[in-house]
Amino acid sequence: MSLLFSIPFQFLAVAAETEAADSSLVLAGILLSLVVVYFASKLGGELCVRLNLPPVLGELVGGVVVGTSVLSLLVFSESGATADNSLIIKFLELTSSLTPDTAESVFIAQSEVISALSELGVIILLFEIGLESDLKELIRVGPKAAVVAVVGVVTPFVLGTLGLVYLFHVPLIPSIFAGAALTATSIGITAKVLAEIGRLSSQEGQIIIGAAVLDDVLGIIVLAVVSSLVKTGEIQISKVIFLIISAAAFTIGAIVLGRFLGPILVRLMDNMQTRGKVLLVSLIFAFILSYIAQVIQLEAILGSFAAGLVLAETSKQAELEEQIIPVADLFVPLFFVCVGAQTDLSVLNPAIPENRAGLAIAAFLIVVAIFGKVVTGFAVFGKEQLNRLAIGVGMIPRGEVGLVFAGVGAASGALDPATQTAIIMMVIITTFLAPPLLRVVFEKDQPSVTLAENPQEPSS
Amino acid sequence: MSLLFSIPFQFLAVAAETEAADSSLVLAGILLSLVVVYFASKLGGELCVRLNLPPVLGELVGGVVVGTSVLSLLVFSESGATADNSLIIKFLELTSSLTPDTAESVFIAQSEVISALSELGVIILLFEIGLESDLKELIRVGPKAAVVAVVGVVTPFVLGTLGLVYLFHVPLIPSIFAGAALTATSIGITAKVLAEIGRLSSQEGQIIIGAAVLDDVLGIIVLAVVSSLVKTGEIQISKVIFLIISAAAFTIGAIVLGRFLGPILVRLMDNMQTRGKVLLVSLIFAFILSYIAQVIQLEAILGSFAAGLVLAETSKQAELEEQIIPVADLFVPLFFVCVGAQTDLSVLNPAIPENRAGLAIAAFLIVVAIFGKVVTGFAVFGKEQLNRLAIGVGMIPRGEVGLVFAGVGAASGALDPATQTAIIMMVIITTFLAPPLLRVVFEKDQPSVTLAENPQEPSS
Repeated sequence: MSLLFSIPFQFLAVAAETEAADSSLVLAGILLSLVVVYFASKLGGELCVRLNLPPVLGELVGGVVVGTSVLSLLVFSESGATADNSLIIKFLELTSSLTPDTAESVFIAQSEVISALSELGVIILLFEIGLESDLKELIRVGPKAAVVAVVGVVTPFVLGTLGLVYLFHVPLIPSIFAGAALTATSIGITAKVLAEIGRLSSQEGQIIIGAAVLDDVLGIIVLAVVSSLVKTGEIQISKVIFLIISAAAFTIGAIVLGRFLGPILVRLMDNMQTRGKVLLVSLIFAFILSYIAQVIQLEAILGSFAAGLVLAETSKQAELEEQIIPVADLFVPLFFVCVGAQTDLSVLNPAIPENRAGLAIAAFLIVVAIFGKVVTGFAVFGKEQLNRLAIGVGMIPRGEVGLVFAGVGAASGALDPATQTAIIMMVIITTFLAPPLLRVVFEKDQPSVTLAENPQEPSS
Repeated sequence: MSLLFSIPFQFLAVAAETEAADSSLVLAGILLSLVVVYFASKLGGELCVRLNLPPVLGELVGGVVVGTSVLSLLVFSESGATADNSLIIKFLELTSSLTPDTAESVFIAQSEVISALSELGVIILLFEIGLESDLKELIRVGPKAAVVAVVGVVTPFVLGTLGLVYLFHVPLIPSIFAGAALTATSIGITAKVLAEIGRLSSQEGQIIIGAAVLDDVLGIIVLAVVSSLVKTGEIQISKVIFLIISAAAFTIGAIVLGRFLGPILVRLMDNMQTRGKVLLVSLIFAFILSYIAQVIQLEAILGSFAAGLVLAETSKQAELEEQIIPVADLFVPLFFVCVGAQTDLSVLNPAIPENRAGLAIAAFLIVVAIFGKVVTGFAVFGKEQLNRLAIGVGMIPRGEVGLVFAGVGAASGALDPATQTAIIMMVIITTFLAPPLLRVVFEKDQPSVTLAENPQEPSS
């Protein structure tokens, strides 16, 4: 009949339909995997919070610990692992009726479902980032933020790409990918660090937040462009222009169309009476845009980000943001833990000669990542008293988007394991360094212009 | 490397690894399926609300419309459907790079993921029901509610099972399954109807709610027992007793252990500082109990229900219930829409001779379902002025748990399509009938004892 439920399939197994027997065990495997993912994400997150580091870092490190590098609890058939590599499958064999015969099919199905949940996780993450972004805020903090954002995207991208090509003789496509991964500041990490040191509403803080918002948008476009380049396997200027136009047209089209659709969706929600109307109407919109973005060769995440931006402009933003938080809490850790779980840290072992190139690349990327953002503050025009160093340092932490690049790059085969791990090292190091560095550069002087302290605690 | 992301796989496809190309299209198929599920659930739900019927009914009917009976948008490989039967796959072929060669593997993967999400949906639904249940409330409204609950479980179960065996010559196991499906009153539907007619806090209303809460617990135990019977394929009294004891021991064990664990979990949450701490710690607990219930041959849903009951007793209940609502809004419609989508209404077409048995069974089940609950009010001891008819009528609406039985039964092969559809017809008809009937029987007299009107609007 159907696979909807688990128990029946033990019955069907009795009825000698062996393949159906898996479903009950697949569900058990999924439940165990979810327990491992959530345990790793919370343990890592809590440890990082106590070390005054962003929780997202802990989720990533937690993923590394439960993943292929250490415990092998969470491994993926798509990464070439088999049931024999999975400690969860071994545990299932011990505790349930799973036999070695059926282990492989259970492993593949469970691995497929967790991967799909992780993909939905990054779609929902970008929806939430879109919902928390504010084009108007960017316009208000104005041209200064734009200069910081553009310089902070172009400098590390150009230096990183050229450096990898000419200093490390890395092929062009992985170099572009790694360069692109250097571009996007983590708005969540940045805002949280600024709030922790009480500078969120200083002029520097406002410029940093504005630039980080624009950075997010630029990062998405860069990711879409670079991903599309990876798809074609070569760089054609006409193709690049086409992709930039198509990415921009999609985003602008979605937002312009959204200006009309937004009020219609709000009116629809207001006329509805069932539970979950705001959340589900919004997600229908987000999933349709994600689907369109996906089939026109862009990224599904660009669609959900655009949907978030559109809905951020409506009167439902606050209600929706409140409702998306538990949903994101549930889905997003799957993404970060799975990214960590697939990181093979053994490529960074300096005892193995061929790994030294990876460490050198990591060191280079970290230097470029820091330098490329620190210069942004000094690029700001005007003669105002600004703590320009603080602006640059505030842009240092990379985060979600950098990890997205690492994951997409690794998944596409565009990045070799050493470069992928170097990017993740770069994300980890910049994120580690930013909080103490920001404290130092802000302590050097008093706030130049202090606006009313914003009491709202940003979510990471 | 991995399947985590979608775009890379078009790249890998370029690299001639055809099977990897699917992932991007699987994601597109999942996004389309989710759009269809949410659209069907909201359209059906809103129509039902306007007809003064519970939204859950609309989700089920919406599922029927998009499912195998009508539009064939949502069909499942596990039900024997192929890519050719799926309108979503046809649509993907039109709009994306999907070819007939790869369609089957994309269809199977997408169908597997939607099934898994639907299974997680019923686990989360039962977690939420557990969280909204209150053992203390049941104890307070006391023995009257217990009499109503027990009589209301035993009468329709015995009459239904015996009637099917002796009048319709249905085999014993499907008869027991159908009889069991008649037992559980829908607490959500009942509470909502009582609130709508302003009798939630009347003495009759309190008895109905108390009995419906106990009904939920009994229904879960009956479901676990019956499901386990289906697994063994025969009825052994020792096995039944063992299962009742093991179901009771699991539930009681989880609750007793929960009394100790509850405060420990609360202290753990209080010491945590990351986002989603209450939700994720609770879900880790729920998924561990679900896993244990699943591997000791009970139901995963019994585990999540027990976890919900345990957490309902803690100080985090209100916070957790608030956070579980958006999560349930996201997952639970998947369950109801998928149940509807798998309902083959063509078995009820009276033009086909062999279908008439199904209609006769449906008529019989509906009569037993109504009679078996109406008598409960008259079973209440004491000489108080009670509107005994109203109590019985208030117990009539079946709902979630009845549909769970229909789904589990169909999935297990224990129920033939006619009997399954008869059960769903019974759920639909009792739910349709209850609101108007309740109005009639309560209008016949004034409230016997009216407590302070409870202003809280229960969620369905």
